[in-house]
Amino acid sequence: MTTNDLATAMKLAADDIERTLERLLPPPVGPEARLAEAMRYATLGGGKRLRPFLTLETAGIFDVKRGCALRAAAAVECVHCYSLVHDDLPAMDDDDLRRGKPTVHKAFDEATAVLAGDALLTYAFEILSGSETHDDPRVRLELVAILAQASGPHGMVGGQMADLAAEAAGEDYDLGQVTRMQKMKTGALIQAAAEAGAVLGRASPEARAALRAYAHDVGLAFQIADDLLDVEGRIEETGKAVAKDADRGKATFVSIVGVERARAQSARLIDQAIGHLALFGERASGLAALARFVIERKS
Amino acid sequence: MTTNDLATAMKLAADDIERTLERLLPPPVGPEARLAEAMRYATLGGGKRLRPFLTLETAGIFDVKRGCALRAAAAVECVHCYSLVHDDLPAMDDDDLRRGKPTVHKAFDEATAVLAGDALLTYAFEILSGSETHDDPRVRLELVAILAQASGPHGMVGGQMADLAAEAAGEDYDLGQVTRMQKMKTGALIQAAAEAGAVLGRASPEARAALRAYAHDVGLAFQIADDLLDVEGRIEETGKAVAKDADRGKATFVSIVGVERARAQSARLIDQAIGHLALFGERASGLAALARFVIERKS
Repeated sequence: MTTNDLATAMKLAADDIERTLERLLPPPVGPEARLAEAMRYATLGGGKRLRPFLTLETAGIFDVKRGCALRAAAAVECVHCYSLVHDDLPAMDDDDLRRGKPTVHKAFDEATAVLAGDALLTYAFEILSGSETHDDPRVRLELVAILAQASGPHGMVGGQMADLAAEAAGEDYDLGQVTRMQKMKTGALIQAAAEAGAVLGRASPEARAALRAYAHDVGLAFQIADDLLDVEGRIEETGKAVAKDADRGKATFVSIVGVERARAQSARLIDQAIGHLALFGERASGLAALARFVIERKS
Repeated sequence: MTTNDLATAMKLAADDIERTLERLLPPPVGPEARLAEAMRYATLGGGKRLRPFLTLETAGIFDVKRGCALRAAAAVECVHCYSLVHDDLPAMDDDDLRRGKPTVHKAFDEATAVLAGDALLTYAFEILSGSETHDDPRVRLELVAILAQASGPHGMVGGQMADLAAEAAGEDYDLGQVTRMQKMKTGALIQAAAEAGAVLGRASPEARAALRAYAHDVGLAFQIADDLLDVEGRIEETGKAVAKDADRGKATFVSIVGVERARAQSARLIDQAIGHLALFGERASGLAALARFVIERKS
């Protein structure tokens, strides 16, 4: 798959995800309308939709019905968007802009941002548990289990805490600690997104493990690429204040090993990720192209 | 069951829940230890454990294994405790005390409180999806579904938004609006807690509906009793600042219909709740005693 083909496939997937979220998210009615408005503001009309794309692509390998894959992908994206809303809060990263728009607590208010995040997280599990997600309740339960594990104290939230704790203590993590923290903070959800397609497709343990391994490597490479963008990026390209982590003196892959070694390491991870796809042949060409895109992207 | 018997039963259940939460919650290890500490601080050692008691009592009707019921009850309590942590945040109700102790954002900090709430909510679904919760994955999925629906935008979080929205607009809700808001904000989770026991016990649709109806009435009566305590309570008895809602000029059941009618209405609801238990005979004596306790409690 060429870079252009990937861009087209990602655009198609993003449009499908947008329509799915639009349809699934609660409409803004009643005295609590503001909650639904904030949930929609936080999720609709933005982002690369990397995680849902992973779910759709891995589901595609196993010929999962598109409607099922889209629901699982939407649930993963709800969790991702909730995490952004809470991470942007004044008490956390205190960001005013996200994807070039005011963050939820700026566009609404802090209380609404806390609640919209809570609601998106909860709603993800409501979506997954719905019978339209898969005929087999065991498959739906497995989706719930992997998403909960990836997002909870042993996954994303734990990683965010580890990140904040290092910052608060003014301690610099070493490479091992940064790697572990990033695997929890961003890697776990990326892995769950990829694994969701395998769960929906009742993949063999080998196929599922291969996709987990692929997503593990892509997730780390994605984070290194983010750090590189943080150092090199320009505000026009990313739509958010750049070099923020560097300004804060936070340890990142790049601050620890330097730009050149970080770039080489991300390239190695991507080769390794693509190696894990051998099992699937041409059916995984989208995933292979995505892996390359992750380190070539400019925003 | 006498009031003393109920007190004994609730104490036993609370001890069991405490041990279960102690065992299930992540231990405070690693750089993210602060997250587990805050999760434990928010859930252990406090509260009446009303919701888990409901789950244990309804599960008891159907001879559900105690270990299964305790896990479901613990998950419900995690969701309840997360909601308290987030509701107490400065951007929300801005409370410094909860159950006589500093609130989580006071004892730790705001960022940790946001994350601990997020982690408790997510962990509830991890607990429910675990195979020890029930042998049958369909039962576990059903538990996930009812808990997600009760806690999300159409339930608890939606109710909290409706409550804040009325306050922000300086508008007084009428009785119908207050009732609807409270059914979402506190009633939905109480209903889910009671329903969880029925789900675990694979109760007939009639039995499940009866327990839902019971919990609906108990939930509303509980809220009216809370409003009465808010007006009449003394700080020594409740361990939190009292008459707060009244100070803010918020419409409550009591401010709308007055103390006497509110008290009569809560008594009517409790009679009605007990009526729904007829189906279960003596097996529901704990639930009947609980219903009476809800409007007689002093804190």
